[in-house]
Amino acid sequence: MAQRSPLDLPEGDPFGPDNLPYGVFTTSDAPHLRKIGVRYGAHVLDAGAAAATAASPHAELLGASSLNPLMAAGRPVWQAVRAELRDWLTNPAHRHAIEPLMHPLTTLALHLPIEVADYVDFFASEHHASNAGKIFRPDGDALTPNWKHMPIGYHGRAGTVLVSGSPIVRPHGQRLPPAEAPASPAPASAAPTPAAPSPSASSAPPRPVFGPSLRLDFEAEVAFVVGAPSPLNTPLPLAGFHDHVFGVCLLNDWSARDIQSWEYRPLGPFLGKSFATSLAAWITPLDALAAARTAPPARDVPPLPYLDDAAAEPGGFDLRIEVAVNGHTVSRPPFSAMYWTAAQQLAHLTVNGASLRTGDVFASGTVSGPRPDELGCLLELTWGGRDPLHLPHGTRTFLEDGDEVTLTAWAPGPDGVRIGMGEVTGHVVPAAS
Amino acid sequence: MAQRSPLDLPEGDPFGPDNLPYGVFTTSDAPHLRKIGVRYGAHVLDAGAAAATAASPHAELLGASSLNPLMAAGRPVWQAVRAELRDWLTNPAHRHAIEPLMHPLTTLALHLPIEVADYVDFFASEHHASNAGKIFRPDGDALTPNWKHMPIGYHGRAGTVLVSGSPIVRPHGQRLPPAEAPASPAPASAAPTPAAPSPSASSAPPRPVFGPSLRLDFEAEVAFVVGAPSPLNTPLPLAGFHDHVFGVCLLNDWSARDIQSWEYRPLGPFLGKSFATSLAAWITPLDALAAARTAPPARDVPPLPYLDDAAAEPGGFDLRIEVAVNGHTVSRPPFSAMYWTAAQQLAHLTVNGASLRTGDVFASGTVSGPRPDELGCLLELTWGGRDPLHLPHGTRTFLEDGDEVTLTAWAPGPDGVRIGMGEVTGHVVPAAS
Repeated sequence: MAQRSPLDLPEGDPFGPDNLPYGVFTTSDAPHLRKIGVRYGAHVLDAGAAAATAASPHAELLGASSLNPLMAAGRPVWQAVRAELRDWLTNPAHRHAIEPLMHPLTTLALHLPIEVADYVDFFASEHHASNAGKIFRPDGDALTPNWKHMPIGYHGRAGTVLVSGSPIVRPHGQRLPPAEAPASPAPASAAPTPAAPSPSASSAPPRPVFGPSLRLDFEAEVAFVVGAPSPLNTPLPLAGFHDHVFGVCLLNDWSARDIQSWEYRPLGPFLGKSFATSLAAWITPLDALAAARTAPPARDVPPLPYLDDAAAEPGGFDLRIEVAVNGHTVSRPPFSAMYWTAAQQLAHLTVNGASLRTGDVFASGTVSGPRPDELGCLLELTWGGRDPLHLPHGTRTFLEDGDEVTLTAWAPGPDGVRIGMGEVTGHVVPAAS
Repeated sequence: MAQRSPLDLPEGDPFGPDNLPYGVFTTSDAPHLRKIGVRYGAHVLDAGAAAATAASPHAELLGASSLNPLMAAGRPVWQAVRAELRDWLTNPAHRHAIEPLMHPLTTLALHLPIEVADYVDFFASEHHASNAGKIFRPDGDALTPNWKHMPIGYHGRAGTVLVSGSPIVRPHGQRLPPAEAPASPAPASAAPTPAAPSPSASSAPPRPVFGPSLRLDFEAEVAFVVGAPSPLNTPLPLAGFHDHVFGVCLLNDWSARDIQSWEYRPLGPFLGKSFATSLAAWITPLDALAAARTAPPARDVPPLPYLDDAAAEPGGFDLRIEVAVNGHTVSRPPFSAMYWTAAQQLAHLTVNGASLRTGDVFASGTVSGPRPDELGCLLELTWGGRDPLHLPHGTRTFLEDGDEVTLTAWAPGPDGVRIGMGEVTGHVVPAAS
């Protein structure tokens, strides 16, 4: 019986010709030679080799060791390259030349596909923001007064954005001792070093202890990758989104809640987030998500003109995310429920004159829907550790050493076909001694 | 009368052989050819050409177009290069070869000397933090409970770090209207676009307006530039400071106070800062500041072990900063008064396992001393706009269009000589229409 060609996909494959996400791989033969690949079914096309074979005008861009040169080239080039890739993969005339350039996905090492410039994290789910507000500030309003007027965001650490699959070492840091913070079970490895005796009276000022985080969490997010740069002092309108954003991928914003809740006043999250952020190995081109565009929720406060998308094309994306802990699905956050869209985030990010660079990444913030099984992090799923999750392999408030978290997603594509997004996975490694 | 050689400096020149700061320049003949320069008196040595002439083993590092390759090479190389530079500039045997490689400073264009990786801004002056706390949160404690336990910091936007001399365009953004925020005089150009009618009753939720910032400020800071990188999951001890930090320079963290005060809850400063940050064109090597090391203020709360510098070498730097607005000195912030040292900041930044990259920049936060003429920003100097500054050219609460802000500094060097630091200057340009 003849072996099936890697170019013949099962019907409805989520990585078919309407998808074509980009990544960067190495083979075991040449572990230092990074190449651009395009995922097709369970195989990866060596895009640089294909472009060279085809004498494509984009051979140099596709022969690079990261996606940045292609991303910088701008939308007309993105569209031309996408048309070429589709032709190479689906036109029988190219089959003989292309088949030898297809690698089984399982044989490759995947790398961070982009060189990250600035990394910004937004906070765009009303459900997440109000849940986090209730948990972190039980005596205050769930949403801060600015929340409905702007997509709140902050800059994160670009240097610790890691590719999916990278191990996540439990971070050390300062946190309040259990007497002064909501309790959560300690992993066996995580005995803290007390810095000072616990205060005997609750009126004493809080004194932190130092040790491995006891409240390690994931955050299921969607990231947008900037391709074409923009100069200083030229705010982008909502419609600029398509010309500047190259693609979309899943992101896990690992968060140490105990470190975060102690450090974040008044300048925001810092070490509770900066130890690691995992990015998918595959960047889905924006054009692959055309059929997934959807209207965002109704705005109950009218946005300022630069954010007003009432007359714009639908700014949301109908991405169906699934979060699994050790293989068990714990949540299905719907990206369509996000209050602020990526186009609004980009307009806000540049409205003060800030420039964009190729490789800038901006993420949505935790994706949470209205239902209890649609929450995008353990902080919400366990309500700050109060209500443990009962999983087949044991109960969890926060992540334990050895736990593996995997985010997957798909979006509606043309003709009822699903567009698969590259997974983000990572497992928790005990804190360094 | 013979012209004086650029190698013969006036006695006590603050850019003499004990200083030797690095920058990147172009000449008018070759405006696209960036070269590494070393400032010496009023001239700049073409360091790449000198290294080539001398057949130095570091010719490739000094022939680069930014300081990053040299910075990545590590401390033994930094010391060897510094010894070579000193020899080339001061040994009469090299005079004939070196003199033609000296350019008058005034004839050169200076560029950002480094490729910035991640940019972190701390908040390390107790005087500044408590003043800002009193102004921003008049009903709360001046310092948040965490402040004495850790150097609070946040990530800023690396892509908008600009070289000294770059114009600063007044940013647009959301802010509360005057009825809901402390008043400050509006520049003539800055009429806001109301988004919504002002609330008639003070109990109505706040509604922002959009327009050019009316409370544009400077922040006098000192930045530390990371040379040698460090891997993930390897926290650096306090003593790691010398092996990883290449140099020091002045930084102006331009701040739109009205945008900042509306946006910063709960995730910290974002667009109120990200429009521009000015960095000096000259990076002072750490070794040039050996005589300026000084003990930081006494710690009234014992730091956790990873931050405890009681037994370490003095972590402070005696840098005397001067802030001038339109040529008039408005403040002399003493860097020696900073509560948290740069070594503590680096230990904190990496204690959660975050890696360092060549080109990472971490800044001190506003340098303010205890006295009213030692405050490092207008927010403090005018107490949030309440007490205007009376300058020879008019009164100021915040910056007006056309204002020029210049930071300069010097440090004690060996034998009573001053070590000059490269200035940071910038002038305010009206908001784009």
